[in-house]
Amino acid sequence: MVVISSPHNERIKLVKMLQTQGKARRKHRRLVLEGVRLMRDALDAGAQPDFALHVPDADAPGTLTHDLLERLRAVGCRVLAVTPELMTTLSDTETPQGILGVFPWPELPVPGDPALVVVADGWRDPGNLGTLIRTGAAAGVDLLLLTRGTVDPTNPKAIRGAMGAHYRLPLRTLDWDAIAQAYAAHRFYLADAAGEQLYTTVDWRQPSVIVVGGEAHGFGAAAAAIPHTRVRIPMVSGAESLNAAVAAAILIYAARAHTFG
Amino acid sequence: MVVISSPHNERIKLVKMLQTQGKARRKHRRLVLEGVRLMRDALDAGAQPDFALHVPDADAPGTLTHDLLERLRAVGCRVLAVTPELMTTLSDTETPQGILGVFPWPELPVPGDPALVVVADGWRDPGNLGTLIRTGAAAGVDLLLLTRGTVDPTNPKAIRGAMGAHYRLPLRTLDWDAIAQAYAAHRFYLADAAGEQLYTTVDWRQPSVIVVGGEAHGFGAAAAAIPHTRVRIPMVSGAESLNAAVAAAILIYAARAHTFG
Repeated sequence: MVVISSPHNERIKLVKMLQTQGKARRKHRRLVLEGVRLMRDALDAGAQPDFALHVPDADAPGTLTHDLLERLRAVGCRVLAVTPELMTTLSDTETPQGILGVFPWPELPVPGDPALVVVADGWRDPGNLGTLIRTGAAAGVDLLLLTRGTVDPTNPKAIRGAMGAHYRLPLRTLDWDAIAQAYAAHRFYLADAAGEQLYTTVDWRQPSVIVVGGEAHGFGAAAAAIPHTRVRIPMVSGAESLNAAVAAAILIYAARAHTFG
Repeated sequence: MVVISSPHNERIKLVKMLQTQGKARRKHRRLVLEGVRLMRDALDAGAQPDFALHVPDADAPGTLTHDLLERLRAVGCRVLAVTPELMTTLSDTETPQGILGVFPWPELPVPGDPALVVVADGWRDPGNLGTLIRTGAAAGVDLLLLTRGTVDPTNPKAIRGAMGAHYRLPLRTLDWDAIAQAYAAHRFYLADAAGEQLYTTVDWRQPSVIVVGGEAHGFGAAAAAIPHTRVRIPMVSGAESLNAAVAAAILIYAARAHTFG
């Protein structure tokens, strides 16, 4: 068996670039998924990797990684062994599982008439954004929009936090002008601790856009310039704010409640 | 001005130990808070630090750190300068603000008749636990209980995620036997993706205990041995689970909704 050990190998250089540079991810329309769970989730969602890398031990029969490698080989995916030392330099996780794959950038079609759109406005924390993507996919949000100031959704931390949801929830990065124009007929609700309307009293049956600002500064001036209602999640005195991913989850589930049953 | 530069200084050694060892935090009943926001939140909540350390630049008039140091001096807190090199070795954050304080372990009294108790059962991720503490304090949860398998709530990542909420929400680590006995008259609701009751249909006006299991394994056998109802947060097909802190937040806010108005 050939085991790649050189950091100058073209595939190794590509993985390294995709792991560390958002620009490279956007240019190649590719990203790296690490570990059995993320790779399996992407395969289940219909994504097909360009190639996969693994340490020799990961191909030992009876292991989860071996089962995944067999599945990849069965669909014609190129699978290559690399030395553990080299794998360590490619991994973004604290406890690497010894397997990763280069996958196409997820690009689900934007639905024509979305009932519920969520906008992450100026989110800086990739872990929070990943959690939002996971929540949005689970709750059945139709479309997630990111404003220009929001962190790259293909950041490795966002990928890990989303647990494969990138392949189940349509998401796009857009300017506020484009957002305002595309969803002019929707009602805009801005999350605001001092908002005039309690979130539990909103009629979420109308086509809605929920806007949640980032941790540091809340929503921006461009969001506030669109006709909107500010919705409040109540807090007891002394508490300043909620985590952005938590606030978004509370509003999303409130907005989706009328569809339960 | 004396500027401490030696790693062998007793206070420096104490801070280092508190930052890295849960055992030391439990033994000394002390923890380290870093940065203006966390320290100010703790002071606002009535906590008084034993001493504070800062880099010389942090005491420059007109800075937020200087204002905080003035406030600390005004309440009689010992404030000591350390070299930037030494401060770097003491900081647990990626972008140190050059100021930290050793604070008493938060130990708010346990309320006698809590309407809403939340149990974090086997949570391993300190960031998620910090987010839960923040959410619980904001929502007005009466008591947060951690089972033995749950990560140390004074872990620096949990402290940062909670944004000062440790000083606003009573929390304790307890065995399941003690939990079952203390809250025998409460209704227990276990978060479960396959649960029989939709969370929006629960009568949350009754004294309730919400149990949310950790990311990896959900709630444990000891939780399931207590008479309980399994509550379900609906998810669209394909989605496996929600982030534990998100699931807890959705249930907590549903349980508190009847108090809004």
